[in-house]
Amino acid sequence: MVNVAIIGASGYTGGELLRILFHHPEAEVTVATSREYKGKPVHYIHFNLRGLYRGLIFTDVNLDLIAKKSDVVFLSVPHGASLKYVPKLLEVGLKVIDLSADFRLKNPEDYVKWYGYEHPYPDLLSKAVYGMPEIHRDELRGANLIASPGCNATAALLSLIPLVKFNVIDLHKIVIDVKVGSSEGGSKPTLSSHHPEREGSIRPYSTEGHRHVAEVEQELRYVSGKDVKASLTPHAVSSIRGALATSYTWALKDVGEVDLIRMFTKVYAKEPFVRIVHKSPPGHPNPKYVVGSNYADVGFSIEARLSLIKSFAAIDNLVKGAAGQAVQAFNIALGFKETLGLELIPIKPV
Amino acid sequence: MVNVAIIGASGYTGGELLRILFHHPEAEVTVATSREYKGKPVHYIHFNLRGLYRGLIFTDVNLDLIAKKSDVVFLSVPHGASLKYVPKLLEVGLKVIDLSADFRLKNPEDYVKWYGYEHPYPDLLSKAVYGMPEIHRDELRGANLIASPGCNATAALLSLIPLVKFNVIDLHKIVIDVKVGSSEGGSKPTLSSHHPEREGSIRPYSTEGHRHVAEVEQELRYVSGKDVKASLTPHAVSSIRGALATSYTWALKDVGEVDLIRMFTKVYAKEPFVRIVHKSPPGHPNPKYVVGSNYADVGFSIEARLSLIKSFAAIDNLVKGAAGQAVQAFNIALGFKETLGLELIPIKPV
Amino acid sequence: MVNVAIIGASGYTGGELLRILFHHPEAEVTVATSREYKGKPVHYIHFNLRGLYRGLIFTDVNLDLIAKKSDVVFLSVPHGASLKYVPKLLEVGLKVIDLSADFRLKNPEDYVKWYGYEHPYPDLLSKAVYGMPEIHRDELRGANLIASPGCNATAALLSLIPLVKFNVIDLHKIVIDVKVGSSEGGSKPTLSSHHPEREGSIRPYSTEGHRHVAEVEQELRYVSGKDVKASLTPHAVSSIRGALATSYTWALKDVGEVDLIRMFTKVYAKEPFVRIVHKSPPGHPNPKYVVGSNYADVGFSIEARLSLIKSFAAIDNLVKGAAGQAVQAFNIALGFKETLGLELIPIKPV
Amino acid sequence: MVNVAIIGASGYTGGELLRILFHHPEAEVTVATSREYKGKPVHYIHFNLRGLYRGLIFTDVNLDLIAKKSDVVFLSVPHGASLKYVPKLLEVGLKVIDLSADFRLKNPEDYVKWYGYEHPYPDLLSKAVYGMPEIHRDELRGANLIASPGCNATAALLSLIPLVKFNVIDLHKIVIDVKVGSSEGGSKPTLSSHHPEREGSIRPYSTEGHRHVAEVEQELRYVSGKDVKASLTPHAVSSIRGALATSYTWALKDVGEVDLIRMFTKVYAKEPFVRIVHKSPPGHPNPKYVVGSNYADVGFSIEARLSLIKSFAAIDNLVKGAAGQAVQAFNIALGFKETLGLELIPIKPV
Repeated sequence: MVNVAIIGASGYTGGELLRILFHHPEAEVTVATSREYKGKPVHYIHFNLRGLYRGLIFTDVNLDLIAKKSDVVFLSVPHGASLKYVPKLLEVGLKVIDLSADFRLKNPEDYVKWYGYEHPYPDLLSKAVYGMPEIHRDELRGANLIASPGCNATAALLSLIPLVKFNVIDLHKIVIDVKVGSSEGGSKPTLSSHHPEREGSIRPYSTEGHRHVAEVEQELRYVSGKDVKASLTPHAVSSIRGALATSYTWALKDVGEVDLIRMFTKVYAKEPFVRIVHKSPPGHPNPKYVVGSNYADVGFSIEARLSLIKSFAAIDNLVKGAAGQAVQAFNIALGFKETLGLELIPIKPV
Repeated sequence: MVNVAIIGASGYTGGELLRILFHHPEAEVTVATSREYKGKPVHYIHFNLRGLYRGLIFTDVNLDLIAKKSDVVFLSVPHGASLKYVPKLLEVGLKVIDLSADFRLKNPEDYVKWYGYEHPYPDLLSKAVYGMPEIHRDELRGANLIASPGCNATAALLSLIPLVKFNVIDLHKIVIDVKVGSSEGGSKPTLSSHHPEREGSIRPYSTEGHRHVAEVEQELRYVSGKDVKASLTPHAVSSIRGALATSYTWALKDVGEVDLIRMFTKVYAKEPFVRIVHKSPPGHPNPKYVVGSNYADVGFSIEARLSLIKSFAAIDNLVKGAAGQAVQAFNIALGFKETLGLELIPIKPV
Repeated sequence: MVNVAIIGASGYTGGELLRILFHHPEAEVTVATSREYKGKPVHYIHFNLRGLYRGLIFTDVNLDLIAKKSDVVFLSVPHGASLKYVPKLLEVGLKVIDLSADFRLKNPEDYVKWYGYEHPYPDLLSKAVYGMPEIHRDELRGANLIASPGCNATAALLSLIPLVKFNVIDLHKIVIDVKVGSSEGGSKPTLSSHHPEREGSIRPYSTEGHRHVAEVEQELRYVSGKDVKASLTPHAVSSIRGALATSYTWALKDVGEVDLIRMFTKVYAKEPFVRIVHKSPPGHPNPKYVVGSNYADVGFSIEARLSLIKSFAAIDNLVKGAAGQAVQAFNIALGFKETLGLELIPIKPV
Repeated sequence: MVNVAIIGASGYTGGELLRILFHHPEAEVTVATSREYKGKPVHYIHFNLRGLYRGLIFTDVNLDLIAKKSDVVFLSVPHGASLKYVPKLLEVGLKVIDLSADFRLKNPEDYVKWYGYEHPYPDLLSKAVYGMPEIHRDELRGANLIASPGCNATAALLSLIPLVKFNVIDLHKIVIDVKVGSSEGGSKPTLSSHHPEREGSIRPYSTEGHRHVAEVEQELRYVSGKDVKASLTPHAVSSIRGALATSYTWALKDVGEVDLIRMFTKVYAKEPFVRIVHKSPPGHPNPKYVVGSNYADVGFSIEARLSLIKSFAAIDNLVKGAAGQAVQAFNIALGFKETLGLELIPIKPV
């Protein structure tokens, strides 16, 4: 049994880690921190968990205690906050799975450019493994520091990997239009998440360049071995859960539907959590039909007249886009069966 | 391993039976019928199940084949349709769990009164067990014919059982106001379920007397040993899943909060799927926080000035209100642990 | 042309006052106050008003300036805040329409009981007119201080007035179950209004006694001339706009459908904003079909077996439940045609 | 007073024509046809219109009667159906505003290519005016046959006109990603519009080439005088009303934010229904804030690193995207003030 600490356990991602790990046969949550709800049982804010986790109480972050009580730490804290904890946790021999952006980028300069700060631990950046099994499964085995991908980046990458791997698109003109549910903004109320304002909205944001592009370009570069230029524009829509990436790319050569089926199948057939949805109901990926699960539904289409390929990936932003993918990486890193705790069936209709 | 057939497997309740039974360690679905989708794999309409149940194809109803391939049959068909199948299935020795209303009422005259037909098998009515474990757990053990409760009735009953059992309310003035999500209407599109019409609606229906009252009164009579008069008025709201029953009753004697806590705890403390929500966040039961699970969250409040008790029960109408409760009864009837396959954690937020 | 000041103009009710008064042929908004958005144009927060009201800038509350620039003041501030402004405004000769609860109750003791404070101006309470034209149209003519009703109270009262007026129900057992949209909570983000938490919710609140009952009982007492005991329990559902009151009452005598049709018609036939919806599509009142307008759709049903009358009123909580009803009272008070500025057609579907 | 007939008046667009024309000072609806609801009053299905339009009853289509009773005909029928009526209506001297696609395309071959039929009246195609005032205001004056634009096309065009007019983008690489609410699918229930399926969905469709591209390319060609290649991919999201077009284009030359402000202002400053939303709350166009009105909110952004321009247009798909734009064209065609009947203020929040 692996003992697990969750730092930042009262937010939505923390809640999902608790939900997923509850039935994980090889993991047990021994520490759950929350500044705001310190002293309260976890169901005090995660109402769904009432009656489960009896005895688990939110605590403050105490790294010594965490080191004593746990083997692996999931960090579910705002960008920037992980920097405080990761070096110390690694030093005392814990494995760390960081769900923030603090260790996702390899190039320290990218932190200056995209996040506006000088990264204090450039050496750790090179040790961290980007936690997407579909790209880095081998490096994840035994990894000590895993940087779990962003949700928009996950959807974007899954829609593009086959096209990039088989080198059939113009890598300098990648347009990714993402639509996301309201849970992506986290559990803190804001004016734009206020129900009367959010419900019914279709609202573009981060339109001058979204930070997740940095990791998308980095990983597509890794997959293709070439320079990549991508744009990612998220749009807040009124779902609660779910993210759909619609990627628009131009075919370099004559690529037909059968070619795409072959490429996507080749890349994803053995992936335990990627399902190809193509010309079978419901026609195209729709995040609605993966809600609650770690699945990513991917698909594609060609507008032949324009040699324009449209590829899609639908995920539950809090599962494959966050907590689920982190547990998937955890399973790989610790040598468990990759699907442990993740045999979650999507709920329909929901 | 128990082999299970689902007659009427393409609707929402059928889909939930498939979702729940997939991970049930003692059951295997061997037959799934659907007139409309005959010949198609189950994920053809249950998009969430893609990649699971490989090889399970919808078939027509063939009772001989069902008798050969299964031990237990779940009937998830419209009211009236079960009558055709049940006697034959029982005759050949299968256990039957009927999710329709066809065997819920003990008194044959109630079928004339509430459903408008003369019941052809009054003898079976007396053999059928009303499948709510919180009332009939003992009779469910070994039962061959189980009539699974209606979703509104389930919520209504759970909100009222303690009050009726402890004889503290006026049994002739019970007002039950139910609010339900759109999935309760089933998977067939209608004008009132058309998204532009349903979303944002708050619409009362069956206001001159809802059929589920018949089973509510029957079961409350059973619990209290007295005559009961109740009214149940459902309101369609724009959730997808969930039903909340708000029951208004007048206290016969001086009943305080502490008394109610004691009564509800006494009745429900050992129930594996009933959770009491009282003055702890989120304050009162809200079906949102049981979605996807078999839990019923119950609670209560007193408007002391008026001696008016308000009691609440929140369920997922497709789980505790349908497929989940049916599997719970199945587990009891077959001597399995009651929670098998039902260790589903609600998803939040969703 | 009447010059109008709106104190508290940046909230949802303030926004609706601005929307409605923009096309009012006899009124012009000259002052709009907002502490938070002082110095910004009104469309800075009321995005819908972009391009209209050029030049209208939010200011601080300055009573001298308001006295100079306006003839009538709408107060759209939190309960308790109106007390600071009303006496002074009346003193300098302005008419005041207060949308808070501060002047709704006639009996000063009710403020102690329901709002927890000693009312400092009991004399003004007797001068204030409760601003529901369906009850107090005559007293509203020329009134100087109008206390505009609460939204839940408005729906509750409209569903009950005919039954009470014709003395056909047990006045001591009135149960009002209200379902309300999220805009009722105002424009300030809170945890329970956070989109991921509110959407899909069915959440009872104020279950031990809702403050609006005080005005409901007061007005029903006024209409009936008798003692009244009512309970009002609101439930947050996931609509944005709209409130439906479902009132449950027991018939004192043999009352049939035709009697109810006659009573409701007698009371409401000449009301410009009350529409009777009975057994014609959509069957019962549904707030969805009055959104954006000042209409109240009312209806009823009898569960004959129980002598239980169910009566319904559906309103847009921000229009007939707030800004619209206030403008209706304003029109009456100033001698204008009652429907001026309020010829708003509900939007469907929305 | 102009007498107006609406053929196909029971759908959502028909309902909006009725809502808008009710307060139009120069128009009166004298005929409203509906096969399905023949003999019923218009509020039988347009519940919002209860109490208005007393005496207006749905009838069958009778062209002789229409010719007698009306001067102008709005056709709100499925694609293909207008062909039956238009020639006859023109012949007897009526003005026709067709909201279907049957007369939108100038080149008869486009009908074969995009709609799959040989157009029977190619001569009428050249006479028809594409009813977007922002492009064809002058030709609309006095026009007898107006082909009202599609909703997706309207949003797409409004987001692109300034960029195309000022010749600053690569006209062969235009990617338009559209997100639309459920009312765009019309008033007939289908599986994909069934509330439990649609709510929460993010579903791409028509991905191999959407028909509206034909009119988008035609009109952009008209504006630019050059060849244009565009792709338009709609996505069903869970709003009821609203369409947002996000257009991705590459700058041909060095174009900065100030240039774009200048171009958009130059093109739209005098347009009565186009509002520019740029770096003022809410930041970007969001269809939520034009609901119920004829406004189009437009905006833009540059991802400078990539020379990628993103331009946005948000409309209410049933107003500026259908009925409202048709009335705008009607006003111009008949020489009325362009905004008559259209002084509708968006409702917020809704």
